[in-house]
Amino acid sequence: MLRTAVLVSGGGTNLQAILDAVDAGKITHAEVTVVISNNKNAFALERAKKKNIPAICVSPKDFATREDFYEKLLQTLKEWKADLVVLAGYLVAIPPSIVEAFPNKIINVHPSLIPSFCGTGFYGLKVHEAALARGVRVTGATVHFVDTGTDTGPIILQKAVTVEEDDTPEILQRRVMEQAEWIILPEAIERIACGSLEVAGGKVHRKKGITAVT
Amino acid sequence: MLRTAVLVSGGGTNLQAILDAVDAGKITHAEVTVVISNNKNAFALERAKKKNIPAICVSPKDFATREDFYEKLLQTLKEWKADLVVLAGYLVAIPPSIVEAFPNKIINVHPSLIPSFCGTGFYGLKVHEAALARGVRVTGATVHFVDTGTDTGPIILQKAVTVEEDDTPEILQRRVMEQAEWIILPEAIERIACGSLEVAGGKVHRKKGITAVT
Repeated sequence: MLRTAVLVSGGGTNLQAILDAVDAGKITHAEVTVVISNNKNAFALERAKKKNIPAICVSPKDFATREDFYEKLLQTLKEWKADLVVLAGYLVAIPPSIVEAFPNKIINVHPSLIPSFCGTGFYGLKVHEAALARGVRVTGATVHFVDTGTDTGPIILQKAVTVEEDDTPEILQRRVMEQAEWIILPEAIERIACGSLEVAGGKVHRKKGITAVT
Repeated sequence: MLRTAVLVSGGGTNLQAILDAVDAGKITHAEVTVVISNNKNAFALERAKKKNIPAICVSPKDFATREDFYEKLLQTLKEWKADLVVLAGYLVAIPPSIVEAFPNKIINVHPSLIPSFCGTGFYGLKVHEAALARGVRVTGATVHFVDTGTDTGPIILQKAVTVEEDDTPEILQRRVMEQAEWIILPEAIERIACGSLEVAGGKVHRKKGITAVT
């Protein structure tokens, strides 16, 4: 079983999608070993506790420097022997020290079809505000490996979502979650857990001859 | 009937998609009044002649200056009383003088989901090469009104297309044509012809209370 650490900051709906996928038998080769939040009030921690999953807060507020905080986060991931780190609405930038300690073992879900509406400054509602401002008819979500850039890592899965005429950023955000993020994030975890993916030349490939077990 | 001028440079598969949509009754409020190529050998001209549609070549090679060429092109569009100008694989940049003479009356089909893989230098196969180089899982096509920027105009329709594991730029290009361009380009023409769209604030809106007649 792939030991998965899920990093969260807020409500934890993406965490819930992962937990539901485990319950539904859609994730069978990975388990959520620990949930780590930067914010002690994150409801995501309650979701974890309800499932008897260790729920930990590692907050930058409890450290004198950003480096100390990052060091503690890295140490925590190592203590829990994480094989995979999932950023599920985690609003803290991951430093190169952690990226390098977990090469192609950290994944993130971004609420647009990268390379549209991504990079510095594009997070949360801002992504959907930008999509609506440009007047796109199709948006979506992306799951990608995390590298030292912002939303520049190898893309694992993407799913398109239709923009409707009267969408607000909030309505569009919810639709992108329901129709894309909550589907492709668990699917990406299972594919990684099955060992069916490989990264080469900055791109993700399916290994030949291996079929994902479902 | 909306008098439509279709501008072409090559094989004319997008023109054919428009002509087929007319035959199939999917375009009922517009007619292709004239086809104009910058290249006298464009096979698109043959497709037009086969349908008894006037097929004209206006080539930059026949004019002393670029300005003279553009002036002739503008004059031709006016002579044919074009209500709508469709760039269907037209490889010539449209100058501001023509954009301003046909405000929100020129449309273009671009083989990606704008704002991904668009702008200066992104045309034809280069678009698909860039999409594959980034490793995206979803691409598509966009029909948009032409403004004085490159691929910056208001978006009318977009359609997503899946990228497959072993795609080459050529294979992906063909799939994007078949599954997106040939569908949304005729649909955009019919919507414009039905008067169901309006442009405000750089975005395309469906007029309230008007249903497209099909």
